[in-house]
Amino acid sequence: MVIVIHCKDEVGLVATISAVIAKAGCNIVSMREHVDVEANQFFARLVVENITDSVAMEQNLLAVLPANAVVNVNPQPEKNIVVLVTKEYHCLSDILTRNHFKTLGAQVSCVVGNHPDLANLCERFHIPFKLVSHLDKSKEDFEQELIAEIAPYKPDYVILAKFMRILSPNFISKFPLKIINIHHSFLPAFIGANPYKQAYLRGVKIIGATAHFVTNDLDEGPIITQKITPVNHSFSLKDLVRAGRENETSALAKAMQLAFEDRVFVYDNKTVVFE
Amino acid sequence: MVIVIHCKDEVGLVATISAVIAKAGCNIVSMREHVDVEANQFFARLVVENITDSVAMEQNLLAVLPANAVVNVNPQPEKNIVVLVTKEYHCLSDILTRNHFKTLGAQVSCVVGNHPDLANLCERFHIPFKLVSHLDKSKEDFEQELIAEIAPYKPDYVILAKFMRILSPNFISKFPLKIINIHHSFLPAFIGANPYKQAYLRGVKIIGATAHFVTNDLDEGPIITQKITPVNHSFSLKDLVRAGRENETSALAKAMQLAFEDRVFVYDNKTVVFE
Amino acid sequence: MVIVIHCKDEVGLVATISAVIAKAGCNIVSMREHVDVEANQFFARLVVENITDSVAMEQNLLAVLPANAVVNVNPQPEKNIVVLVTKEYHCLSDILTRNHFKTLGAQVSCVVGNHPDLANLCERFHIPFKLVSHLDKSKEDFEQELIAEIAPYKPDYVILAKFMRILSPNFISKFPLKIINIHHSFLPAFIGANPYKQAYLRGVKIIGATAHFVTNDLDEGPIITQKITPVNHSFSLKDLVRAGRENETSALAKAMQLAFEDRVFVYDNKTVVFE
Amino acid sequence: MVIVIHCKDEVGLVATISAVIAKAGCNIVSMREHVDVEANQFFARLVVENITDSVAMEQNLLAVLPANAVVNVNPQPEKNIVVLVTKEYHCLSDILTRNHFKTLGAQVSCVVGNHPDLANLCERFHIPFKLVSHLDKSKEDFEQELIAEIAPYKPDYVILAKFMRILSPNFISKFPLKIINIHHSFLPAFIGANPYKQAYLRGVKIIGATAHFVTNDLDEGPIITQKITPVNHSFSLKDLVRAGRENETSALAKAMQLAFEDRVFVYDNKTVVFE
Repeated sequence: MVIVIHCKDEVGLVATISAVIAKAGCNIVSMREHVDVEANQFFARLVVENITDSVAMEQNLLAVLPANAVVNVNPQPEKNIVVLVTKEYHCLSDILTRNHFKTLGAQVSCVVGNHPDLANLCERFHIPFKLVSHLDKSKEDFEQELIAEIAPYKPDYVILAKFMRILSPNFISKFPLKIINIHHSFLPAFIGANPYKQAYLRGVKIIGATAHFVTNDLDEGPIITQKITPVNHSFSLKDLVRAGRENETSALAKAMQLAFEDRVFVYDNKTVVFE
Repeated sequence: MVIVIHCKDEVGLVATISAVIAKAGCNIVSMREHVDVEANQFFARLVVENITDSVAMEQNLLAVLPANAVVNVNPQPEKNIVVLVTKEYHCLSDILTRNHFKTLGAQVSCVVGNHPDLANLCERFHIPFKLVSHLDKSKEDFEQELIAEIAPYKPDYVILAKFMRILSPNFISKFPLKIINIHHSFLPAFIGANPYKQAYLRGVKIIGATAHFVTNDLDEGPIITQKITPVNHSFSLKDLVRAGRENETSALAKAMQLAFEDRVFVYDNKTVVFE
Repeated sequence: MVIVIHCKDEVGLVATISAVIAKAGCNIVSMREHVDVEANQFFARLVVENITDSVAMEQNLLAVLPANAVVNVNPQPEKNIVVLVTKEYHCLSDILTRNHFKTLGAQVSCVVGNHPDLANLCERFHIPFKLVSHLDKSKEDFEQELIAEIAPYKPDYVILAKFMRILSPNFISKFPLKIINIHHSFLPAFIGANPYKQAYLRGVKIIGATAHFVTNDLDEGPIITQKITPVNHSFSLKDLVRAGRENETSALAKAMQLAFEDRVFVYDNKTVVFE
Repeated sequence: MVIVIHCKDEVGLVATISAVIAKAGCNIVSMREHVDVEANQFFARLVVENITDSVAMEQNLLAVLPANAVVNVNPQPEKNIVVLVTKEYHCLSDILTRNHFKTLGAQVSCVVGNHPDLANLCERFHIPFKLVSHLDKSKEDFEQELIAEIAPYKPDYVILAKFMRILSPNFISKFPLKIINIHHSFLPAFIGANPYKQAYLRGVKIIGATAHFVTNDLDEGPIITQKITPVNHSFSLKDLVRAGRENETSALAKAMQLAFEDRVFVYDNKTVVFE
């Protein structure tokens, strides 16, 4: 069973925590712990055997930890997710396949697309697909419709699997630290439209992808994982895009695995990830 | 023997080139060729056996290639370089060691530092070290002194091995496409002072280094090679800097090897690199 | 249009080839060429514009190349493949997804499994699945049945996507240099049963996957591509296997892309791969 | 201050340890902990603030830990090492440079070579070089001479920086789990003489290096770290060797850093590495 703890740092926290666990007759199989000394924050993820009463364990931990501690004993092992997409299939098909074979670590409740292109793929895997077009309506209305489709599932995470609309702070506030996005990254970074074209023109030798939580705007927010792939002058623009997609699929898959296994903690604008 | 060719693209260029080589009784051992179709540019690097007269070969090639072709038959196999440094030793010591064991592909004629810190290291390898301080003088005067030290060596390349002064367009124009710089790179990019601090605060999971030709300003210019290294939340700022240095050393070493072996072509703001 | 050439090396081959192409009024957009000097073998892959008569081009090239040259002008751009599987889904689902979205560079004609586990996945994508069990029959009979299912499709390639039976030289000879296999690789290598268990017990820090042509036995043969992923002591045996699968999927996908785009040449027990 | 602990696993160990630390008024800044459930082994590395009495802390921990626990409070932060070499300079020069700039995390007391080739490099850095030739003597005598040179320094680690003689179990037993070796690794592995030649003939696409403790024979033993570098058909045998050297230098540097910072634990034939 997993226990995750995030709180203000204090002298003796590990002793305090492990005493509670030992007293309950449980054994710590593995423990990852990190203190951000400057930020005075404590993070721990434990795998513990023989917990018979999760609720009691949580209460006992909260009783001895600093005020405002966040403790989660035995978080839902299989998460419930909603996936938002536009037209590109690479991330979604990877998610649906893993979902089908029960290796995703989550159950896909629904896919919502602002284009109908990926409805057929969802059908093949018997996953509901909802079309919520952004056309001919205000952003506010569009997002209200999205929320209306998503919220009833009470998802643990909303996955933006190449969802190409920028979401407003209002939308984001409905799912705080529950929205994971994947986007391309470059060295150097390229601002503005058509970043692959810019990267191509600049002759970059590496292209990357960053999976992150969405906080204020679409492409910022605490980074969960990053991957890169080497490229060279023989890559056409189309080749760059293709290499970028492989990278995006792989980075998003990794980020989901880490999040679904409760290995990711967020604070300030950064993460602690116990890989 | 190496032949490098860069010219406007035309139908039949490879035939034209290889006919000249075959007529001279020479054999092409390996050939790398690239056409940038949009830019209409042709690039080739050939390794050719049995060239007896390099000058004649060059003339014969120029005679049949499009106007303004750049042809170099048997470029100087061991380059002559000057290295500019400030205080950090990691790139310079790698260069001096390879130079000492004759595996650099270049001979270090001189090291110029704007601080005296690395004089001692150069002494150990019997390489002249010249101190050109930037203190108490105008940038123009500083750069004139640099040029006065560097120019007499007629270097094939000027290597900025963690040289921490920004060079003016005037300086750069004295060594066109001969200056190679190494600098840290991040995903995302961080503008302004102390990028490692910014990367640390943002919790990046990858740090990179980019080796590039210096054209207009210090950190832009055609990219030769890029390397990355994965990092995580357990890296202190100091650890990030250390990992960055390993990366910089490695990326600069690779870029120098590629340049010294005449594997790099520059056009527009990008490169063709025949690795 | 692509042209691939493999023949004995001779002086002036590039001139010879490019003269034929220029004479036909065609332009070489890109050319990759390699000579193995020791083996005296020449390899080239060209992308050529404006070929109007492929058959004539092929004849014209054969007429001037050394005896026994292999020339292929405009090889089938979309290959036809048969996929062999056992129980593991990771490679097959990646193949079927790419096939569905027409980004595989090949068309999957049929999937043959020696277990029924993956029939359902094939159904979802409307790809024929044939069960050929190895139970209760001789290896010879088993392979005859496999051949009977595969041969009618006249596949360009037979992909072993985690097919867990060792194939005999007789079977392999029916599809010479057309069978591509993926298998795990370790540093160091582990002989015998349960290599992941051995790797786990040995505490390896890297696990790899190798995609290769099958020549004599299942896990040897000319290497097309290799990928690795870093692992550490916190990986359970199950985690190692999972990381290995991601790696296998990725390496096989890359190898198929290279083969389907006619970028791979085989000679002796090795390959030339023009990535 | 660092504390490392290795002992039999028991219920409540983390509580026990952290209680001792808290009772001494010390704070745990970071803690890495691992339990090998199958082997019933517990490993921890803690960074602790405000330890005033290291000896008392060690005694207090030993008093509450299972029998035969290994506890090291405040291990020597700068190790003392002896380096063994033959003719290749790449690893040694990296070590000497880091040593010179005090970033190695260890002090090089002496370099011992069985060839005189690297004496000059050591002189430049004012490090004693001892020549112990293996010629015209028995292996036993050779190793006795090596031991006679090494033992007086009481080194924390003996680094085999491309030392090309196989050491006997007798020699190894004199420095148990203190000898670190670097050697090339390949996928697949190649047994016997000239592995780079074999890898070249096999057309491998990746070459690797493994840094490991030496236990029974030269190229086996618990792995500390592994690195790889991609290669391709255009690499000559010489290029492969060069790429391999870069890799070896980098892998050995990493392994030394991990060992010198007390991040590596050994048990059975494997390691726990808290990177």
